[in-house]
Amino acid sequence: MRERCDLLVHSAAELLTMAAGPDGPLRGDALRDPGAIADGAVAIRGDRIVAVGTTADLRARFDASNDIDASGRVVMPGFVDPHTHLVFGRTREDEFEMRCLGRTYEEIAAAGGGIRASARRFRSLPREAIVAQAKATRASALRHGTTTVEVKSGYGLATDAELLALEVAGELDVAGDVVRTFLGAHEIPDEWRADRRGYVRLVIDQMLPRVAERKLARFCDVFCEAHVFTPDETREICVAAKRLGLGVKLHADELAGTGGAELAVELGATSADHLMAVSDAGIAALAKSETVAVLLPGTSFFLGMKRFAPARAMIDAGCAVALATDCNPGSSMCENPQQVVSIACIGLHLRPIEALAMFTRNAAYAVGLGTDRGRLAAGFRADLIVLDVPNHRHVAYHHGVNHVATVVAAGVVRR
Amino acid sequence: MRERCDLLVHSAAELLTMAAGPDGPLRGDALRDPGAIADGAVAIRGDRIVAVGTTADLRARFDASNDIDASGRVVMPGFVDPHTHLVFGRTREDEFEMRCLGRTYEEIAAAGGGIRASARRFRSLPREAIVAQAKATRASALRHGTTTVEVKSGYGLATDAELLALEVAGELDVAGDVVRTFLGAHEIPDEWRADRRGYVRLVIDQMLPRVAERKLARFCDVFCEAHVFTPDETREICVAAKRLGLGVKLHADELAGTGGAELAVELGATSADHLMAVSDAGIAALAKSETVAVLLPGTSFFLGMKRFAPARAMIDAGCAVALATDCNPGSSMCENPQQVVSIACIGLHLRPIEALAMFTRNAAYAVGLGTDRGRLAAGFRADLIVLDVPNHRHVAYHHGVNHVATVVAAGVVRR
Repeated sequence: MRERCDLLVHSAAELLTMAAGPDGPLRGDALRDPGAIADGAVAIRGDRIVAVGTTADLRARFDASNDIDASGRVVMPGFVDPHTHLVFGRTREDEFEMRCLGRTYEEIAAAGGGIRASARRFRSLPREAIVAQAKATRASALRHGTTTVEVKSGYGLATDAELLALEVAGELDVAGDVVRTFLGAHEIPDEWRADRRGYVRLVIDQMLPRVAERKLARFCDVFCEAHVFTPDETREICVAAKRLGLGVKLHADELAGTGGAELAVELGATSADHLMAVSDAGIAALAKSETVAVLLPGTSFFLGMKRFAPARAMIDAGCAVALATDCNPGSSMCENPQQVVSIACIGLHLRPIEALAMFTRNAAYAVGLGTDRGRLAAGFRADLIVLDVPNHRHVAYHHGVNHVATVVAAGVVRR
Repeated sequence: MRERCDLLVHSAAELLTMAAGPDGPLRGDALRDPGAIADGAVAIRGDRIVAVGTTADLRARFDASNDIDASGRVVMPGFVDPHTHLVFGRTREDEFEMRCLGRTYEEIAAAGGGIRASARRFRSLPREAIVAQAKATRASALRHGTTTVEVKSGYGLATDAELLALEVAGELDVAGDVVRTFLGAHEIPDEWRADRRGYVRLVIDQMLPRVAERKLARFCDVFCEAHVFTPDETREICVAAKRLGLGVKLHADELAGTGGAELAVELGATSADHLMAVSDAGIAALAKSETVAVLLPGTSFFLGMKRFAPARAMIDAGCAVALATDCNPGSSMCENPQQVVSIACIGLHLRPIEALAMFTRNAAYAVGLGTDRGRLAAGFRADLIVLDVPNHRHVAYHHGVNHVATVVAAGVVRR
């Protein structure tokens, strides 16, 4: 007697389960062998995976209402993108051109561009325009294989505008696929430049309580960086967020090393992100912790930097490392995780399989969903993608094209 | 009384004509202003453009059988990709992974990998497998906006296999959109390693006459580089090719400066390609010549090099510069010109408009078709693309996604 299932994805040339070993993010050499099945299949009922195995095995066990033939293709968990700013309203291609001609990101920001320019534009837009932009970007990310996406606020930089950004992020959610992060402390906006202390108090005393009360975010993030928020300001904001029940994520050690990684560990942060300038002490602290190091090599690429985060040193040290797009209009205008996989392999010296494990199972831990997403295993959410490539290396190797043929999110075929 | 036309593409937010100034490739500051029309339109009859102007102007003048509404979008000439090796048979993702982990391209080649590995695989494949690979890659390039593509042989490295590669390239041609180049001198194959002189004679005495007799190629190319073909060997092969009526293109100064640019000018080459290691003397020689400098920044990216070709110095010196994908399985596995535009702006410090002009009008000159393609102007071939972006900067800025909504090639809607 065969069991019923709603959907059987079968005959995959290579099925990457990312489910090897005990629970937890994959560390060190475990990233090289995250679990693969030749001629693999996945059985789905409702929004859950009920079984994973060979096609012969699952065909013998299940009677499927629908099926997807993945012959000659790769099947893997949907990408979990654990760091984006995709509710931004307007783009900043003018600054991109300036940077290509030699201006630095920091120079443009110091001249009133950068995040502050985005905030001025964001506040001037009608809500519908922001919703339209965010929905278009989210839809494109889905077409490129992202089934779960973290979305930060941070272009409002005023109470109402920050709350609006989080509300819009909520509107993007179809079935629990959007994780929201409050990033009021993304930059000091124009009107508070003369009173940074006043802005920090606004974040702590006004924004955070309203975000928590209305349950508009799961995490609080701070841009801890020279010329943005100091480690002390960061600590103060994050401690307040934790008291309100929010988890913590940090923009840490992006452009200059300021001990951001160590601070993230001290705060028990779910993730420390960027880390291009992380110190050896920061790597050691991360390695001993549960804090996931989220690397954003697409940003290094987009900013034309020769330097990338020391990914191999972090992997060798035993850190839990993940990847994300950092999708945002200033430093990483890309919502396609496959593009970042290619850049990561080249810039961070990763094996393609490592990059894919970092962008699924480990990325799920970076948004607090590691025991629900990012793996193809019984009981996990039925989020998977079928890629029109003969083996997984092609996702990194054959770059600049969208290999995603099919997206299944929470058991529903979405593309 | 209005004229009839077959197709009217109209209402483009920005129509890039690339038709400014007198004939010839755009040089120096002229690259910044190649011609743009707001609310632009193009009228097409058969495979030709019959008029270009504002939408109001062309609507008043033409009665169109069909139309394409490009509202809110950018219209520009189809990309001309003047340097590809897209008939390769098999991919080399194994070498990509080795390179990501630190092996260099040269080390892999010296160990028998690289082009020689491709040649062994190419020769072992049935013709149908090669045709299927080449057609799939060409179709993807078209979907990404490439309306004219140069295709080199060079993975056969034996007479019959080289002729086969050029025949297959010919099969890709739909309406004069494939330009073929004979590159028998791409590498010394395994069986001639002990007798390089013998292989050069084979190229000159046997391959070239058959290619010319059967009109299988318009150009002859040589990989002039340390450890590949010397300047003297290159000269000898190219002189023989010119006697047979072929044009000349050169792989010049890619990894080490060997005077390849100067040699290309001396030989009256249509193009000198790569040029990452071009000398000041090479730049000066190119600037005074009609030889187009074809830059391939996607290759620098893919090989993880920190160094890119000195594009700004070449533009400032007055060289005619173009862009290409270099699509090939070893050093640039990408057929998408938009991807190379993004990499070019970031790595070569180009304005997006410069990169687009270099990949259309100037690229057409790099394949000898500068007075037929690469511009939107009356009399030119009706090759154009509609991009779903609000302005041309987005093609470079918003990277990793395919912006092409519509492709018109020789007057026919192909996508």
